[in-house]
Amino acid sequence: MANAVLLTSCPDRPGLVRAVARFINEHTGNIVHLDQHVDPVTQVFFMRVEWELGEDTGASRFKDTFTSFAKETDMTWSVNLTATKERLALFASKESHCLYDLLARHAAGELPIEIPLVVSNHETLRSAAERFGIPFHVFPITKETKAEQEAKELALLAEHQIDTVILARYMQIISPQMIAQFPDRIINIHHSFLPAFAGAKPYHQAYARGVKLIGATSHYVTADLDAGPIIAQDVQRVGHQHSVKELVRIGRDLEKIVLSRAVWSHVHHRVIARDNRTVVF
Amino acid sequence: MANAVLLTSCPDRPGLVRAVARFINEHTGNIVHLDQHVDPVTQVFFMRVEWELGEDTGASRFKDTFTSFAKETDMTWSVNLTATKERLALFASKESHCLYDLLARHAAGELPIEIPLVVSNHETLRSAAERFGIPFHVFPITKETKAEQEAKELALLAEHQIDTVILARYMQIISPQMIAQFPDRIINIHHSFLPAFAGAKPYHQAYARGVKLIGATSHYVTADLDAGPIIAQDVQRVGHQHSVKELVRIGRDLEKIVLSRAVWSHVHHRVIARDNRTVVF
Amino acid sequence: MANAVLLTSCPDRPGLVRAVARFINEHTGNIVHLDQHVDPVTQVFFMRVEWELGEDTGASRFKDTFTSFAKETDMTWSVNLTATKERLALFASKESHCLYDLLARHAAGELPIEIPLVVSNHETLRSAAERFGIPFHVFPITKETKAEQEAKELALLAEHQIDTVILARYMQIISPQMIAQFPDRIINIHHSFLPAFAGAKPYHQAYARGVKLIGATSHYVTADLDAGPIIAQDVQRVGHQHSVKELVRIGRDLEKIVLSRAVWSHVHHRVIARDNRTVVF
Amino acid sequence: MANAVLLTSCPDRPGLVRAVARFINEHTGNIVHLDQHVDPVTQVFFMRVEWELGEDTGASRFKDTFTSFAKETDMTWSVNLTATKERLALFASKESHCLYDLLARHAAGELPIEIPLVVSNHETLRSAAERFGIPFHVFPITKETKAEQEAKELALLAEHQIDTVILARYMQIISPQMIAQFPDRIINIHHSFLPAFAGAKPYHQAYARGVKLIGATSHYVTADLDAGPIIAQDVQRVGHQHSVKELVRIGRDLEKIVLSRAVWSHVHHRVIARDNRTVVF
Repeated sequence: MANAVLLTSCPDRPGLVRAVARFINEHTGNIVHLDQHVDPVTQVFFMRVEWELGEDTGASRFKDTFTSFAKETDMTWSVNLTATKERLALFASKESHCLYDLLARHAAGELPIEIPLVVSNHETLRSAAERFGIPFHVFPITKETKAEQEAKELALLAEHQIDTVILARYMQIISPQMIAQFPDRIINIHHSFLPAFAGAKPYHQAYARGVKLIGATSHYVTADLDAGPIIAQDVQRVGHQHSVKELVRIGRDLEKIVLSRAVWSHVHHRVIARDNRTVVF
Repeated sequence: MANAVLLTSCPDRPGLVRAVARFINEHTGNIVHLDQHVDPVTQVFFMRVEWELGEDTGASRFKDTFTSFAKETDMTWSVNLTATKERLALFASKESHCLYDLLARHAAGELPIEIPLVVSNHETLRSAAERFGIPFHVFPITKETKAEQEAKELALLAEHQIDTVILARYMQIISPQMIAQFPDRIINIHHSFLPAFAGAKPYHQAYARGVKLIGATSHYVTADLDAGPIIAQDVQRVGHQHSVKELVRIGRDLEKIVLSRAVWSHVHHRVIARDNRTVVF
Repeated sequence: MANAVLLTSCPDRPGLVRAVARFINEHTGNIVHLDQHVDPVTQVFFMRVEWELGEDTGASRFKDTFTSFAKETDMTWSVNLTATKERLALFASKESHCLYDLLARHAAGELPIEIPLVVSNHETLRSAAERFGIPFHVFPITKETKAEQEAKELALLAEHQIDTVILARYMQIISPQMIAQFPDRIINIHHSFLPAFAGAKPYHQAYARGVKLIGATSHYVTADLDAGPIIAQDVQRVGHQHSVKELVRIGRDLEKIVLSRAVWSHVHHRVIARDNRTVVF
Repeated sequence: MANAVLLTSCPDRPGLVRAVARFINEHTGNIVHLDQHVDPVTQVFFMRVEWELGEDTGASRFKDTFTSFAKETDMTWSVNLTATKERLALFASKESHCLYDLLARHAAGELPIEIPLVVSNHETLRSAAERFGIPFHVFPITKETKAEQEAKELALLAEHQIDTVILARYMQIISPQMIAQFPDRIINIHHSFLPAFAGAKPYHQAYARGVKLIGATSHYVTADLDAGPIIAQDVQRVGHQHSVKELVRIGRDLEKIVLSRAVWSHVHHRVIARDNRTVVF
C-alpha cells in the first residue's frame, strides 16, 4: 500500500500534533510513524508523519484539503509519496568517488531514487556514468559562458523533471538564479568540517592549521557559499604524519559516506531546513 | 635508572638521526625510544629520542656538549629528565570539570606532575583545589588591574618554579607579555573544534550554525587568540534535539578529556611546536 | 514546579499514547516531553512521559490510580519525581578514576544525585571519598566472608535508602541474592566492548586478539556475569604500538565517561530495560 | 625510479636496524622510509623499509643476497617493488557494496592493483563486474561440489597469477586447503566488531545483545573461522531505534570502508601478521 510523508514546521502552539493526526485520520489515513521536535530556542515546531493512504483518498486530494488547514497554523509543509522515487541529477567535475558511490547505491537498489542524468563541466567522468547506463551531459563553463550554460542545464533539469540536484564534488559555484529554482533541493558535499575551512582548498587549509581531525559536510546550497543548512557531517583522525595528499586520500572516504547519508535522509523525506539549520528525523 | 628525552627540530639534511644517535652513545647513553618525522612540505626534521643516562654523564653535561653540535645543524631543541616531574600551575575560573579532572589524575598518580598551586580570578573553585590540598590563589581581574595582577601571577609562578601553565577553562585572555614568558608552555582548552567557532560563546555559535558534531581543542597559547598550535582535538555527535545547554553539558566531557590528553603528551615531552603546527609523537 | 516522569513498556496495541496522555491530563498534569518507541521485532511499546504535576494531585496519588489502568494494558511502569534526587551508593576497589569522576560531577552539581556513602573491599580509596566529604565503608571480602559481608552491605544500603548501586570499577562479583534486591538498579562499568572480552583481564584479552579499537560498556547487573542490558558503550582507536599498560591507560578515560553517561541516563529516568536490552530515551 | 619495500619480523636483538640499513646501502639502495616496532610483550622486532633501488641492482638480486643474512637473524621477510601492481581476485556472493567500492577505486586509480577477475558462487553480481570490464566467473558451491569447485578456483587463481584474494562479502567458508595456498593473502570483511559476533548473522546477534555500536572487521583468513589477524576495524553508533534491517544498512558503509582500508594497507605492503596479530605501519 502507498504511504505518504508530511514534513512540516511552524511556530509552536498547543494541539498541533493532535490537529494534524485528526486531519490525517479523517482522510482515512493510518499513521505509522510520527516524529516531532520543538526547538527550545526559537519555539518552532517540526514534525514528520508517515501514514498509509486510505482507499478513498490520495496524496493529491490530501494536499488540496490540507492547504487551508496549514494556512491557519502558518505551516510550511510538503507531502510526498514513499512509492514515488526521487529524481536526482548528479553534478560532478573530475573526482569520481562520490559519483561512483551514488551510482553503485542506485544500481544496488539501496536508495529510492532515479538518476536520469549526470551533468559535468568536463568530459573526465563520462565513462563512470555510462558504465552505469546513465546519460552524461557536458557543459563546459567559463566566466563568459556560465549564465548561458546554467540556463541550458536548467532546461535539461526541467525536461527530466528533476527533484533534487546532488553536487557530487562539482567544482563550480552555482549561481543564485539557479539556487532559487531549487530551494533546499541542491545538496553539496564540502570537503571540510564546516564552518572551518570554507571556500577553496580546504585540505590545504587544514594542513596549514595543523588540525588533528579532518571532516566533510553535506549541506543544502544557499546563496552564501558553503554556509547553507548542514544535513550531515563526520570526521576522521589525522596527524602530523599526513601530507596534504594523504588528507585528500583520507577525506575521499569521508566525503562519499557523508554525502550519501545526506542523500539518504533527503530522499526519505527526513530533513526539514529552517533558519539555516536542519532537523533530521 | 634516569632517562633523558631530547626533542628537536631543524631543516632536514642527511645523517641527522645517525649523528644524534652517535652523540648520545658517545656520552654513554643507551637509546630506548626514537621517533622521527620529516614534514614533506616544509622539509623540517623532527625527532624525539629517549635514552638511559650512563654512569659518567648526566643531562646537564649532555646539554653543555650538545649545544655546539645543535648550533651547527640549526637545531631547536630541549632535553628533559623523565624522573623530573613537570611543575604545573592550573588556572581556572568558575567551571570545575577540567580542574577536577586534572586534580584527580594528579592524586591518582596518572601523570608525572606536581601542582604547586591553582590560580583563579574568582573564589568559586577554592574548595575544589583545597580538598586536594592544593593552595588556591585568587587574582580578581578588571581592565584596570589586569597588568598589575598578571605581574603578581608571574611572580608567583616564578617563585614556585612553574614549568607550564594549564588554562583549565580560565576565562581571561592572557596578555602577550605573559605569553612571552611561557612560549609553548601555556596550554589552553577551547570549547570548539578550532578553527571553527574561535572566540566567545562557541556553543552558541555551534547551535546557530547547526553543526552535527561539536568539538574541543587543546592548543599552545600564542598572541593570536585561539590560533596557537593545536595539540589535541576530539568531537562528539550532536543533533537538532540538543539545546545550547545540552551542547554545554556534552562538551564538558570532551573538554576535560582533550585537555588531559594534551597535558599527557606535553608532560611526557612528546610535543614539538613549529610553524604554528605540532608534531605529537 | 515539580515534574513527574513515567517510564513504561508493554505489548504494543493501538491507542496507548492517547490513553496515557488522557490519564495524565485528567489528573491535571501538563505533558512537557513524550518519547515513545515500538520495537519492530518484539512489538513491545516503550514510552517516557514527563509532565508538570497539577495543583490538586501528586505523584503518589497518580500512582494509586494508575495501577489499575496499567494492569489492564499489562504495563511495566515506574513513576519518579524530577525534584527527588536519586540516592546512589558508589562501590569501588582500588582504581580511583571512575570514583573521582562521579564525586567531582556530584560536587559540581552536574547530576541530580545524592551520594550518602562509598563502599569498598579495600582501604585504598578512603581519601578519595573523604576529601569529597562522603563516608567510606570498607567490607573486606573473602570467599568465606562474602555472604556475611554482603548482608552487612545490604543493611547499610537499606539504612541509607539507596536507590541505585554504581559499581565504579568494583572488582567483586555481586551475588544473585544482592542483585535480586536491586533489579535494574545496579550499574556496572566493564572495561571492554561487550560482548567481546567478558570476564577477567579484558585489556589483556584485547591485546592478545590484536583488536584495533578498545571499548567500555556500562550495563545493568544481572545474574549472568557481564551479560546484563547495555546502557552505554564507546570505543577508542588503538594499534600495535600500544602495550597492555597503554590500553589500560587509554581505557581509563573511556570507562569513566561511559559510566557517567549511563548514570546520567539512569538518574534522569531515561532508561527502560526489557528482554535484556535497553531503550535509552 | 623503482622503489622496493622490505617487510620483516624476527626476535629482537641489538643492531637490527643498522644491519639492514647497511645491507640496503651496500646494494646501492637509498632508504626513503623506515618504520620499526618492537613488541614489548613478545620482544619481536618488526620493520618496514622502503628504498630507491640503485642502478646496478634490483629487487631480485637483493632477494638472493638477503636470504643468507635473513637466515642468520631468524627473519621472516618479504620484498616487493612498489611499481608492481598487486594482482587481486575479488570473491563476492550477492551483496554488491564491497565489490562496487573496490571496483570503483580500481577504476579511479586509487589503488596500485590489478583485478584480473571476480569470482562468485552466484550469477547475481555479474553485471557489477562486467560494467567495469572485469571477467566474472561463477562457481556454484554445494557441500558435495565444494572441494572440486575450489580446485577449479585455485587453478584459475594460479593461471592469473593472483597475489591476494579479497573476500568482498563472499558467504562461503574457505577450506583449510585453499587457505594454505594463500597464507596471509586472503583478506575477509566480517560484519561485526570481532571477536564479538563471530559466525553467522552478526547483525541479528548485535540486535539481540542490544549493543550501542556496531562494527566491521577486516582480517587475514586462517583456518579458525573469523579468528585470523585483524588488519582494520571501525564502528558506528546505533540505538534501540534501529531494527536488524537498519543495522544491515548502516553496516554496509562500515564494511566497505573498513575492507578498503585493509586492502590499502595490504597492497602498500604495510601489514605484518605474526602471532595472530598485525603490525600495520
